[in-house]
Amino acid sequence: MNILVTLDSNYIKPLKVMLKSLFLNNQKEVFSIFLMHSSLTDEELDHLRNYINSHGSKVEIIYVDNSCFSNAPSHLYYTKEMYYRLLAYKLLPDDLDRILYLDPDILVINPIRELYDIDINEYLYASAYHDIVSLKAINKIRLFPYEIDAYYNSGVLLMNLEQQRQFIDENAIYEFVEKNHSYLVLPDQDVLNALYSKQIKSLDEKLYNYDVRYFNYYKTVSKNKWDMDYLINNTVILHFCGKKKPWKKGYSGKFHSLYKHYEKLAFTC
Amino acid sequence: MNILVTLDSNYIKPLKVMLKSLFLNNQKEVFSIFLMHSSLTDEELDHLRNYINSHGSKVEIIYVDNSCFSNAPSHLYYTKEMYYRLLAYKLLPDDLDRILYLDPDILVINPIRELYDIDINEYLYASAYHDIVSLKAINKIRLFPYEIDAYYNSGVLLMNLEQQRQFIDENAIYEFVEKNHSYLVLPDQDVLNALYSKQIKSLDEKLYNYDVRYFNYYKTVSKNKWDMDYLINNTVILHFCGKKKPWKKGYSGKFHSLYKHYEKLAFTC
Repeated sequence: MNILVTLDSNYIKPLKVMLKSLFLNNQKEVFSIFLMHSSLTDEELDHLRNYINSHGSKVEIIYVDNSCFSNAPSHLYYTKEMYYRLLAYKLLPDDLDRILYLDPDILVINPIRELYDIDINEYLYASAYHDIVSLKAINKIRLFPYEIDAYYNSGVLLMNLEQQRQFIDENAIYEFVEKNHSYLVLPDQDVLNALYSKQIKSLDEKLYNYDVRYFNYYKTVSKNKWDMDYLINNTVILHFCGKKKPWKKGYSGKFHSLYKHYEKLAFTC
Repeated sequence: MNILVTLDSNYIKPLKVMLKSLFLNNQKEVFSIFLMHSSLTDEELDHLRNYINSHGSKVEIIYVDNSCFSNAPSHLYYTKEMYYRLLAYKLLPDDLDRILYLDPDILVINPIRELYDIDINEYLYASAYHDIVSLKAINKIRLFPYEIDAYYNSGVLLMNLEQQRQFIDENAIYEFVEKNHSYLVLPDQDVLNALYSKQIKSLDEKLYNYDVRYFNYYKTVSKNKWDMDYLINNTVILHFCGKKKPWKKGYSGKFHSLYKHYEKLAFTC
């Protein structure tokens, strides 16, 4: 399975925790981890390469330099990292047809095979939209002219690279950013939603992009089915969305102990 | 390492979870599990034996019949299970010098070797007392005539069997129960405290008998040292004290997700 991650130095530790959870709960799989970056040191890269190799997976480092997105509007304050996910198909090997992008602030707590094999022939991506009513309403207003049906979260993104090479227009993305930069809050996610939401296959967020802040909401809308027991045995991806992160001091939440458990395993084994 | 557990049918599942956590976090150790019971079926015993053996540990079944505690006051409503821990030394092999009793409602989340090897030459037991102020005050009043210094929790109990064979007087226990039965709330724990608290070596409850209901209390008294990060990396035993148990519907708490994680591992691997 091909996994895409992008990071800078600040995310090395969370990335290791995420990967640890992925490896532990998918022990029969072989992974190729594509690690996209523009600022990691050789030492950091060696450390990550060793870590990934020691878990039986392959790693390919993709260094992204400034010339990669040379047509991008450069006067804006966004860094070019915002294009990593949107234009990954340009930077990945040509023979790759599919890859699963994963944010570093997630835990993979169950087998990921079913997600990876989802039929996305007719789509550019598969992703989950976060269905909290208020969030949907806010984002619809904000991206009003683009008539999006749902606001997808780009933290877990299954990519159909073949389709993307054919149908994604790099310059259309740059034009969109140029035109809308004053409205963009999460720029890459906003672009994804505004330009491609109709070509995104919807995933069940409770399975594949469970926002850990909304335990009670998920439980209620599922008529108590999605309780802690069901979640631990069925949800594949827990996503620690929002500003408060479980690796930081002062965090608290229902999945704090579980996150710290995986963190301990990542840092000691 | 010798581990003592006692159970009836209702506790088979939690016991498996506890043992799973013990095995996973102590992979270099070899355990002999002494399983004391009076009501498990052959099928249940086979199941547990296979489970324990499949994790590389030995198991010894100790069936406790009615003749074991024949002098115990029989007109009281207590079942004879209350004597399992107090009189384990009578039922265990004579050549055993030390054993660690563990309740089934715990998780062992770190190596247990240091606890097991604690010097208890001069003591009957090692145990942690739960230091919540109100709890201590209540129990002191309740067991007032016995001048106990601290109220020990008997859920984690390191036993010096050699000393116990010499110094524990079975009939003194029966007499105490006969005399005080109207005051006893947790009968075996109360006996332990009233008769033997001065011969119990104190353990740090934050390390070896962490009551999961008191996260904020422990954090406060330790001046924020014992936060989730420190706990996951240092606390050895989490104890799910109280009536609300994490394997039951409707439970919620800071360690719910972690418990369910181990439960999943116990039931699937």
